[in-house]
Amino acid sequence: MINVVVLGAGNVGQHLINAFIKADEVSLVQVYNRTLSHIAQFKQDTIITDDLSALAKADVYIIAVPDQAVHKVSEAMPRVNGVVAHTSGTTPMSVLSKHNRRGIFYPLQTFSKAITPDFASVPFLLESQAASDLLVLQDLAGTLSDKIYDINSEQRRQIHLSAVMVNNFVNHINYLAFNQLEKKGLPTDLLKPLMEETLHKLTYMSPYEAQTGPAKRGDEVTIRQHLALLDHDTNKQVYNILTKSIREHYGKKL
Amino acid sequence: MINVVVLGAGNVGQHLINAFIKADEVSLVQVYNRTLSHIAQFKQDTIITDDLSALAKADVYIIAVPDQAVHKVSEAMPRVNGVVAHTSGTTPMSVLSKHNRRGIFYPLQTFSKAITPDFASVPFLLESQAASDLLVLQDLAGTLSDKIYDINSEQRRQIHLSAVMVNNFVNHINYLAFNQLEKKGLPTDLLKPLMEETLHKLTYMSPYEAQTGPAKRGDEVTIRQHLALLDHDTNKQVYNILTKSIREHYGKKL
Repeated sequence: MINVVVLGAGNVGQHLINAFIKADEVSLVQVYNRTLSHIAQFKQDTIITDDLSALAKADVYIIAVPDQAVHKVSEAMPRVNGVVAHTSGTTPMSVLSKHNRRGIFYPLQTFSKAITPDFASVPFLLESQAASDLLVLQDLAGTLSDKIYDINSEQRRQIHLSAVMVNNFVNHINYLAFNQLEKKGLPTDLLKPLMEETLHKLTYMSPYEAQTGPAKRGDEVTIRQHLALLDHDTNKQVYNILTKSIREHYGKKL
Repeated sequence: MINVVVLGAGNVGQHLINAFIKADEVSLVQVYNRTLSHIAQFKQDTIITDDLSALAKADVYIIAVPDQAVHKVSEAMPRVNGVVAHTSGTTPMSVLSKHNRRGIFYPLQTFSKAITPDFASVPFLLESQAASDLLVLQDLAGTLSDKIYDINSEQRRQIHLSAVMVNNFVNHINYLAFNQLEKKGLPTDLLKPLMEETLHKLTYMSPYEAQTGPAKRGDEVTIRQHLALLDHDTNKQVYNILTKSIREHYGKKL
């Protein structure tokens, strides 16, 4: 049985709390939040507190607060026996206070309040200062997922950059594509099967092999027609730079 | 029973041919291709020809050749009784020769030689010059899919632009993200669950609501760290312009 305290109840915090409550091998001994009312719903399942000096004993303390608050919360914690790990993709382990043993417990996924994540499919990126603490973090992550990776802070930063691309940038491009249709009163549902197949193709081939389209084949007529349909400067810039980037990778110049 | 001739045997042509062969309500009476050996595999199921003057009688003639060849093939066709429709997303109906009745039969999907598409989920965008021909095209598309849309050439061009975004641009961003990891010897499989959830989220919310990340929340520290990790000018430009575009849509300026 692994004893855990979770600090913070944002999207990541709440989903981890709910998952730990359900996990047989985990005892969620306490949840901390600055604002007690935000964690009132966990009262039946664990002890809740807004007092950092009253933290319970645990094997792992998970700090799931916004990136810029991780340092402050870890500094404000008392000396504890367990390992103190944060859940941020970008923040190095070194921001954690030195007065406790440090670690990283980063679930690589996008979380929404309304959607209960399937942690079984979520990769957990783990790191620890002391080798023995990595085993504890591995055991804890292993109660939720089989996808466990030992990743140092520098690697995690690289992965977070790529995660921003495939999540934030891809979602924004989807938004721009939907927006173009909505402005013309056309149904965005039209695009869904194509979006699904775009992803599905990567089961069979690499994104490099999967690339198609006017930029790759150097189809200037279509590219010019598309640019004429975009009525916003930034949209034209997005189109141009992605077209340029594709051309650079496939060796076709305008 | 709808009698169909397919002209051309590229990705779209071959997949349509195979689907028509299986469809109970369709009789694929002939397949034409400039190079006969490319359609030899259909000999058991239909008549094959490389002679445009020997086209069989049919209700619908589907021209599934590269965009720039549509005009030439349609001009070279004899006068026929059926409707002549092309399968291109960008090419207007007007490129088809005036000596036959014209139409569009555009399946909005990305096709690969190696993957048999599930046409049932593919939207068919139809157009015709004569109203009565639209009914024939609807009947024919209806043998493969329930997703049938009447879309004029101007709308189709808009949709094709959005299709290029959600397919070509999204795939290229996935490529750039994978490439960043591969350069550092990190596994790209890490990103798959996130890519799936990015798409899955759009079942519950719009891409506008689904947006998260450093650009949206104006997190300059992370943005600067990411830019420092990108070692190629075009990659930095892609990052910068997408970050700028997200900021413009969410009202956060650097």
